Amino acid sequence: MRCTVIGAGNWGTTFAQILADAGNPVVLWTHVESRAEEITDRHTNLRYLPEAVLSDRITATTDMAAALQGAELVVVALPSDVVRRVLADHASSVPRSAIVVSLMKGVEHGTDTFMSQVLSEIWDIPAQRMAVLSGPNLAGEIIRRQPTTSVVACTDEQVALRVAGACATPYFRVFTTTDVIGAEVGGAVKNVIALAVGIAQGVGYGDNTMASIMTRGLSEASRIGVSLGAQAETFAGLAGMGDLIATCSSPLSRNHRLGSLVGKGYSLQQAVAEIGTTAEGAKSCRAILDLAQQRGIRVSITAAVVAVLYDGLPVPEMVSRLVERPPRAED
Amino acid sequence: MRCTVIGAGNWGTTFAQILADAGNPVVLWTHVESRAEEITDRHTNLRYLPEAVLSDRITATTDMAAALQGAELVVVALPSDVVRRVLADHASSVPRSAIVVSLMKGVEHGTDTFMSQVLSEIWDIPAQRMAVLSGPNLAGEIIRRQPTTSVVACTDEQVALRVAGACATPYFRVFTTTDVIGAEVGGAVKNVIALAVGIAQGVGYGDNTMASIMTRGLSEASRIGVSLGAQAETFAGLAGMGDLIATCSSPLSRNHRLGSLVGKGYSLQQAVAEIGTTAEGAKSCRAILDLAQQRGIRVSITAAVVAVLYDGLPVPEMVSRLVERPPRAED
Repeated sequence: MRCTVIGAGNWGTTFAQILADAGNPVVLWTHVESRAEEITDRHTNLRYLPEAVLSDRITATTDMAAALQGAELVVVALPSDVVRRVLADHASSVPRSAIVVSLMKGVEHGTDTFMSQVLSEIWDIPAQRMAVLSGPNLAGEIIRRQPTTSVVACTDEQVALRVAGACATPYFRVFTTTDVIGAEVGGAVKNVIALAVGIAQGVGYGDNTMASIMTRGLSEASRIGVSLGAQAETFAGLAGMGDLIATCSSPLSRNHRLGSLVGKGYSLQQAVAEIGTTAEGAKSCRAILDLAQQRGIRVSITAAVVAVLYDGLPVPEMVSRLVERPPRAED
Repeated sequence: MRCTVIGAGNWGTTFAQILADAGNPVVLWTHVESRAEEITDRHTNLRYLPEAVLSDRITATTDMAAALQGAELVVVALPSDVVRRVLADHASSVPRSAIVVSLMKGVEHGTDTFMSQVLSEIWDIPAQRMAVLSGPNLAGEIIRRQPTTSVVACTDEQVALRVAGACATPYFRVFTTTDVIGAEVGGAVKNVIALAVGIAQGVGYGDNTMASIMTRGLSEASRIGVSLGAQAETFAGLAGMGDLIATCSSPLSRNHRLGSLVGKGYSLQQAVAEIGTTAEGAKSCRAILDLAQQRGIRVSITAAVVAVLYDGLPVPEMVSRLVERPPRAED
């Protein structure tokens, strides 16, 4: 299958490698000319994957129209806040029959829409050709071909199976689902939960507290998702629980690191300055809280993260808010 | 509420402390005379909780009849393989109206019954007075009063709420459920999954692999549980996912440590000799596999653990078995 991957960061490049390992020719788009040359000529991407040797089935370009020409599978892996700006002008270059796959997780600021919805809108992609891939997929481990799993979500199950077939390798086991909304909500809320876990760990709390926040947080994600039409089971699967565990276990996760600094007493501004970027969870937590509140859904962990990051709630009080409640049925 | 805790290991002693912190007088039973004296007179249990100072609301005894006399709440925290032998003769000492709570996780060898079923049988406790408590509850963190959560399961919800009320403290937030079987299956299968995670980490695999095994493993637990009458949601909750994450994150978990040694090339016998005890998951994995196979439930992770521990399957082959499958729908 002729594949195009848009975005040569660590996940986009790693996913290009998966597709190449599965036998597909891959064109990788980057906006940086020197990086395109490095990938094509030297088979490396030292900025993002310093130790990897890339397949010679991967070539890179900065020419979006050329990258898209003849593509049967178009995979998008850009920062969520640049998708619309970078891609909107190229709708006419996307082949009419191409399947589009989003690797991105987050809610677009201002429009409160998920990434696959943004792509569908700007490129006019019908739901049956729009897929989302999500799972416990830390790029730094996959590029070393450590075994993992993932889920492709598409409303058309046959299309999900085609995408899964295109990227299945001995180290990358791919399942399918038709629950696109569940995969999107799981991915977006996960970042907020990772922030909450980071905050608690920054304060010095241990594995019980982390496990409690993750479990209760995933239950929040599930309730939000179900209110938007998702299936609860998706959140118990690889795109929910699996992705969440991998992210919260990784010391490299930006959301986790940002939370940890906030837990140690940094303000949001100081933590962002230290890390050099705003983690996705800090960008989307208010949109997710709005979404939940509009539907009357109780989301104590998301609310606590928003209160700490934006409303000055002291961190110790945030953590005790999560446990100081009268006994009641679990939900 | 007058409380009795049977078993002064680290979890039994820590739970006695929770009950004492919640304002209850607690009698703690241990079979070791010197430990009973130490707990009552010096308020310590140095063998299991070397840094803790215990509440003076806790007294200890080796006299089971005296410990049970007048108890309104009887909490049992013994190794699963001694429960029947230690407790069977004392049925007549258990007050007729007492609520009994099991803190234990595992399947009794030979009878394939869960711990609350064993207690119900030997003490003739009706279901509406038999409860199970489970959650992300590493004793070493709770004894330092770090915040966490737990679930009390009882078929009678009012009884679950009474137990929850008796042990709720500012650092121990307790939810309730009526799904006793779900809590039991979650706790037992968790140990097997922790073994599988330990094996993969012993081989050198990272967080994606761990997250995949945990997610797919919990799905196995859920399918087994549902076939026995449990609710799927229980496995997404604190007694399922929460307990699993805490156990797999803790380097102190015996199942995790045993698995890690096996992953590094030890035989089961060598690993047990190194750790000094057989981890619960190694004891129950065959019973759980039988249970699943009798019901036609596919349990690839449990089967892989059994194959490695008892049938000589090489570890690298076990891990690749978990990913080398054709694409299909997630379940």
